Amino acid sequence: MLRSAARLADIEPFHVVELLTRARQLEAEGHDIIHMEIGEPDFPTPAPIANAAVDAIKSGKTLYTQAFGLPELRAAISDFYRQRYGVTVPAARIAVTNGASGALNLAFACLADPGSEWLLADPGYPCNRHILRTYEGRPQSIAVGPNSNFQPTPTQVSAAWNELTAGLLVASPANPTGTLLTLPEIAALAEVCRKNNGHFLVDEIYHGLTYETNATTACAAGDDIWVINSFSKYFQMTGWRLGWMVIPEAFVRDVEKLAQNLVLCPSTPAQYAALAAFLPETIAILEERRAEFRRRRDFLAPALEAIGFHITARPEGAFYLYCDCSALAADSFTLARDLLEKTGVAATPGLDFGSNAPEKHIRFAYTTSVDRLAEAVERLRRYFGR
Amino acid sequence: MLRSAARLADIEPFHVVELLTRARQLEAEGHDIIHMEIGEPDFPTPAPIANAAVDAIKSGKTLYTQAFGLPELRAAISDFYRQRYGVTVPAARIAVTNGASGALNLAFACLADPGSEWLLADPGYPCNRHILRTYEGRPQSIAVGPNSNFQPTPTQVSAAWNELTAGLLVASPANPTGTLLTLPEIAALAEVCRKNNGHFLVDEIYHGLTYETNATTACAAGDDIWVINSFSKYFQMTGWRLGWMVIPEAFVRDVEKLAQNLVLCPSTPAQYAALAAFLPETIAILEERRAEFRRRRDFLAPALEAIGFHITARPEGAFYLYCDCSALAADSFTLARDLLEKTGVAATPGLDFGSNAPEKHIRFAYTTSVDRLAEAVERLRRYFGR
Repeated sequence: MLRSAARLADIEPFHVVELLTRARQLEAEGHDIIHMEIGEPDFPTPAPIANAAVDAIKSGKTLYTQAFGLPELRAAISDFYRQRYGVTVPAARIAVTNGASGALNLAFACLADPGSEWLLADPGYPCNRHILRTYEGRPQSIAVGPNSNFQPTPTQVSAAWNELTAGLLVASPANPTGTLLTLPEIAALAEVCRKNNGHFLVDEIYHGLTYETNATTACAAGDDIWVINSFSKYFQMTGWRLGWMVIPEAFVRDVEKLAQNLVLCPSTPAQYAALAAFLPETIAILEERRAEFRRRRDFLAPALEAIGFHITARPEGAFYLYCDCSALAADSFTLARDLLEKTGVAATPGLDFGSNAPEKHIRFAYTTSVDRLAEAVERLRRYFGR
Repeated sequence: MLRSAARLADIEPFHVVELLTRARQLEAEGHDIIHMEIGEPDFPTPAPIANAAVDAIKSGKTLYTQAFGLPELRAAISDFYRQRYGVTVPAARIAVTNGASGALNLAFACLADPGSEWLLADPGYPCNRHILRTYEGRPQSIAVGPNSNFQPTPTQVSAAWNELTAGLLVASPANPTGTLLTLPEIAALAEVCRKNNGHFLVDEIYHGLTYETNATTACAAGDDIWVINSFSKYFQMTGWRLGWMVIPEAFVRDVEKLAQNLVLCPSTPAQYAALAAFLPETIAILEERRAEFRRRRDFLAPALEAIGFHITARPEGAFYLYCDCSALAADSFTLARDLLEKTGVAATPGLDFGSNAPEKHIRFAYTTSVDRLAEAVERLRRYFGR
């Protein structure tokens, strides 16, 4: 019998897809579903970005670009680092990629030797460990919790490091918790990696969507750090599939070889669209939407707490609330299913984010309007009898 | 010192890029360069396709789709197999991907165990072996030549198969030669793979661009065959990065898990664009362009032969002529460089396609107008004193 490669046994589907399929069924039957399971902004791509794509397509700018993307887009990203963060990142170190997913694929394809071990936070974005496994690296979970704001500490990383460990990947803001790392925290983690001769990767795809403070980029903590970003979330270009990566200089050539062979180039219309992402009129739209996300969070977090969900992480960014639901239910997977069936509220059970007490946690995304969030809260109140 | 993974030592850059860079330099200095090195149609994306993208973008259809793409696009591709080839391919077996590159990435991520060996034709498209190597599979070259029209024979494949061999990848039409496999030839190769309990993958990305006959799809030779196709070449959507793959049913679930984790989804605007790719008005445009490619080939092939290039392959498809230049020069790499410098004609040396007598071969792409091809031929005539 023909079989898949052994790695497939370790790669899991999205559990939430099963839930989504059921949600779509219920909708088809006429039920009103409130989608709080989806990691996608509900705003359309800002008009200046969409218009730039239309102009490019109409003028025939749809040919292959260089593997790392349009030089002018790489330059615009470099400018963005200078303007927003006051950090110099040469365009030569910036690769435009097929979303942040494409960036992480290239990074692990470049760095992960078979059997090499990589430290990742649990809970965390599940695709990361599966991408790593695809390139024959081995994810090693660091269980994180409220004590460290759901981020790995230098002490934890040092303790977890062994002779097979090749590096560390963190995310700030994190998914599913929305917690941030400060620049000193990032610098301390970078030091641990350096001391152990390991690679350090920082996922910054929710940058721009922070509500108390502007996140600081890991680019400011050293040019030996791999930094991954995306046009999907803050710039609201999900379906365009565009992101970028800042690469330590010594690895630029190798990543470029991989991009030439594995990808050819990122989507050309999306690249021309993204050239408009940094225009002042676009940023103005994005900042309004950021304020709206903040309003949603500030409404939803206390409302969920009042029902009995316990938010132990400080959700300073992204658009998620990761809640401890153990006071309300024995198992979050069953709870998520039950909430969907009985209240029409769709949320993501902890199971999708790792194996660190997933049954106690559920993630609510505030990617829908305050009115709809209020309706969801009302339904949850009734369900729990609060 | 931090280093890349060991696999990077086996992954080569495109050698032609060095040539391209020099070509751009010469152009910047005011020289007239005739580009016959580029594997990209010189026609813009047909208007109905471009217009469909514009409509989708204007109406906000830019969100994530399912990992395998829009159900209506998968259905349209299934219809295309029925209409053009008279073959039934259920939409459930069709995955829309980030170009054919994305398809091959998913296929090898799904199938290639570390150390597994895969048979590939040499000369062949160089990225294939590097994609395979990235997933820790090992490419094994089958040297092909004029005796078998530059395609591997069942006898060669049987002889090359050993206990580590996991499968065979062929391309029809092939790059760099443009040669085809007939349906009986494909069926015979499939039988060898079955007998050896191996996987069989067929790259059909130049389908549609054949000039004596319509190519037959490997889908007609068994539903256990992986078939890769692209919207880049015949449909002239290169920069949009969209392709598809027909997956044997037993592997659909595993490939879907990989697509969910590694890719999320293919470009949404590109998918809406591609919905217009199968419209009668689009096909009419594409068929005119196909006729134009044929005119170019029919002009260029005898003209190059008259100069002393020897075309030993039957170039029935794609848009390349792979020429034996050993009667004209000792080394094709030096020749390509010299042609560029002294005549402004850019072509791709054999080095980029493998290690089977690359120094004797050079590839000319007819992705430019007959007028420009005539000018190139004139310059070559003068250079060689013919």
